[in-house]
Amino acid sequence: MQAKPAASACMIVIGNEILSGRTQDKNLAWIAKELNETGVKLLEARFIPDVREVIIETLNLCRRQYAYVFTSGGIGPTHDDITTECVAAAFGVTVKRHKQAEATLTAHYGAENLNAARLKMADIPEGASLIANPVSAAPGFRLENVFVMAGVPSIMQAMFANIKGDLKGGAKTLSRTISGYVTEGVLAEKLTAIQNNAPDVEIGSYPFMRSNKLGTSLVARSTSTERLNIVYDQIKEMLLSFTKEVMEEDLAA
Amino acid sequence: MQAKPAASACMIVIGNEILSGRTQDKNLAWIAKELNETGVKLLEARFIPDVREVIIETLNLCRRQYAYVFTSGGIGPTHDDITTECVAAAFGVTVKRHKQAEATLTAHYGAENLNAARLKMADIPEGASLIANPVSAAPGFRLENVFVMAGVPSIMQAMFANIKGDLKGGAKTLSRTISGYVTEGVLAEKLTAIQNNAPDVEIGSYPFMRSNKLGTSLVARSTSTERLNIVYDQIKEMLLSFTKEVMEEDLAA
Repeated sequence: MQAKPAASACMIVIGNEILSGRTQDKNLAWIAKELNETGVKLLEARFIPDVREVIIETLNLCRRQYAYVFTSGGIGPTHDDITTECVAAAFGVTVKRHKQAEATLTAHYGAENLNAARLKMADIPEGASLIANPVSAAPGFRLENVFVMAGVPSIMQAMFANIKGDLKGGAKTLSRTISGYVTEGVLAEKLTAIQNNAPDVEIGSYPFMRSNKLGTSLVARSTSTERLNIVYDQIKEMLLSFTKEVMEEDLAA
Repeated sequence: MQAKPAASACMIVIGNEILSGRTQDKNLAWIAKELNETGVKLLEARFIPDVREVIIETLNLCRRQYAYVFTSGGIGPTHDDITTECVAAAFGVTVKRHKQAEATLTAHYGAENLNAARLKMADIPEGASLIANPVSAAPGFRLENVFVMAGVPSIMQAMFANIKGDLKGGAKTLSRTISGYVTEGVLAEKLTAIQNNAPDVEIGSYPFMRSNKLGTSLVARSTSTERLNIVYDQIKEMLLSFTKEVMEEDLAA
């Protein structure tokens, strides 16, 4: 088995509603930023439907390939929430009623309202530890390097806040951005020269359109502040050679 | 090799800017809805970085697995736009200057502004056919079952409009949605009974929160209008047994 890249991560977004276009996913961009802050690098994201074999196969591929795997979606009380059983199957363990999860749900709903469907949310794969859900009680869980979270953005975010401290990040990637109303085709040659001279700094070029004017946002990324600043200054000088009006912010979209 | 599911599709979103959280992808949800309309079923989406080997491997996996593959991102004039060369490598063909693409770019930019970087956008894998770009001229292309499009949403959408008619869809999936301020845990048992009696209709349950009130949107999906309406009526009756206030629209988020 290949060694996993240190501090690497994959996000698995589970749910037919995303692939049907019914729901616009907001979890990927949010978690990507959070991981950046911790020095964990999101290398891939997969969006898959609520299909048992697909979920299991994707989990097993990704948990072996990346240091961390995050999932969102499919842990509620209804028939289409099958993520928990699929995680258990992927790890070859059984799902068991988790005492602490049951106590949390009892406290939240009251024993009289804790029906079978809600109790299903206390069924957790053996060996997993809970991820607290301060919004709606039903917990997520962690099994080895897989973090299983809710799909509703506010709940996912609250869960992630409880695990962020457990992640072992590498050096944090810093970035600086500059934008101007110069099209990519005009600056590409000079930008390539800067990139070729600085293979240790990643330079991204992103076109945008504002009020029918085309422009480009240039983003430099590096784990070294010093190198970042040197290359950023080169990019800025280059951009200023085409336009006097540069904006040291991100305008791309 | 396994047969590809008819009218199946995979979307590959290419670009570091998505995985760093810098850019919120808007192409997936848009294309998912469009595909729905044509009867093509989006079964997976993958978000991958601007890394040559990853792009090539993902393309080769997906084009063999799905009837259609759509990519967005990485076909511009700058050094980080490597999708075109990766598609060529995946198919084992070379990239060649495409006469028609060159003519289009010349007409758009004027010969005097058509520098080497812009001309790169006329380099297309051998055997590919062009996808016209009415927004900014530089074309996308189709090679067998792979459709390569720009990442900027307005351009991607204009390109997709030019290929939509070429897609061979199956029966279109119809859907009806009803929402109410009833939480999933309350209705799960009755909903499961409805789903179990109607395995041919897909029922999705999606929690939402509005003004601090929790509710659920229930979505029935089927290729048969008749079956859809029958199951929808059962869902509606079930929901009405819990609340008089139901909304025949989608409130989930």
